[in-house]
Amino acid sequence: MKVGVLGSGVVGQTLGGHLARQGHDVVLGTRSPDELGGKRGLEQTSLQEWVDGTDGRGRVESFEAAARHGEVVINATAGTGSLDALRIAGEQNLAGKILIDVSNPLDFSRGMPPTLTVSNTDSLGEQIQRAFPECRVVKALNTVTAALMVDPIRVGGGDHHLFISGNDDEAKRQVTGWLQGWFGWRHVIDLGDITTARGTEMVLPLWVRLLSTLGTPMFNFRVVQ
Amino acid sequence: MKVGVLGSGVVGQTLGGHLARQGHDVVLGTRSPDELGGKRGLEQTSLQEWVDGTDGRGRVESFEAAARHGEVVINATAGTGSLDALRIAGEQNLAGKILIDVSNPLDFSRGMPPTLTVSNTDSLGEQIQRAFPECRVVKALNTVTAALMVDPIRVGGGDHHLFISGNDDEAKRQVTGWLQGWFGWRHVIDLGDITTARGTEMVLPLWVRLLSTLGTPMFNFRVVQ
Repeated sequence: MKVGVLGSGVVGQTLGGHLARQGHDVVLGTRSPDELGGKRGLEQTSLQEWVDGTDGRGRVESFEAAARHGEVVINATAGTGSLDALRIAGEQNLAGKILIDVSNPLDFSRGMPPTLTVSNTDSLGEQIQRAFPECRVVKALNTVTAALMVDPIRVGGGDHHLFISGNDDEAKRQVTGWLQGWFGWRHVIDLGDITTARGTEMVLPLWVRLLSTLGTPMFNFRVVQ
Repeated sequence: MKVGVLGSGVVGQTLGGHLARQGHDVVLGTRSPDELGGKRGLEQTSLQEWVDGTDGRGRVESFEAAARHGEVVINATAGTGSLDALRIAGEQNLAGKILIDVSNPLDFSRGMPPTLTVSNTDSLGEQIQRAFPECRVVKALNTVTAALMVDPIRVGGGDHHLFISGNDDEAKRQVTGWLQGWFGWRHVIDLGDITTARGTEMVLPLWVRLLSTLGTPMFNFRVVQ
């Protein structure tokens, strides 16, 4: 399957690398596709090393090229830059497609812990859906760390939950199938329309505190009934 | 133990009733302690019926009398009225005491689902601690429905988590012990100072959506590692 991944940080590299190694045809979109040598932020792998690790099935190109390439597009950019990155990617390259929105509106500019740039009465997922009405936005994966996104079995035998939000039921069914097929997610809860993304984005402040308390990002929530 | 419970809605009645039936000396504080016959909102029990069910160990009095009575005080008022109720209860009646803050800043005035009156850069827990600096505020129990607060074993064998926040470590240790002794909570995670109450209060938007999706309030989160 042709997958476009917007964002070349840890999340984009992890999702795109996993999909490429599964045999998918992945284009990772980045702002500066000619700078493959450096590492930024939390990255442990340069983009050139990422490309080398995909057995020829992963390429790094522009946001626009990645969006055009994808039959499905994954937004793995930092939340503060997501709307800008999607505009660069181009509305015409996203129209009609499913956009899996993994981003969180985390604002680190005031220091740690981060606050949210949007919350409570709106969400980044909704902002993206409003800005790209022809796009079928499905919010997913934003409540777990990158390593767990692609390998949920690494904690608790995979017996924990992922939440999805979106206005398009068929798109959510498709994404639920992909989450299971690509990564092995067995427990996906459809919360409802895209306004429910407020709920999952607003989990981040608790998530960040648990990261400090537990000393590891390798955790997730199980809804116990 | 002498316990003052501020708030006579479902949460206050449930917590106070449970503690009274355990043999504690409970005063439930309410705005209009002379009106014991009616039922309001979601209440299934009138205050007179609540009193009758406590075998003489529960009384209904004013906010002030309840706060004065309690060696520990529990804030179980609706979040939009909590600061007002605590002011009526009186700073001098709260000073030096542990205040277990169970409230959530839910605003139902815009309809369903509710939004939060404070979030992201502040929390109701912090507002209360700032307004009553002599009080030892411990945020707890605000992420579960009343019936689970007092009986966590009712879902998943009790194998799920409660979060607490507060500036006073000794107060948090004490509350953790009470949560176990009073109600049977086995898994309590201390998130840190009172600013971490932002995280647990901001879980409510997800909680409310899960209530709709699951069709029951009888659920909680387990942190899976």
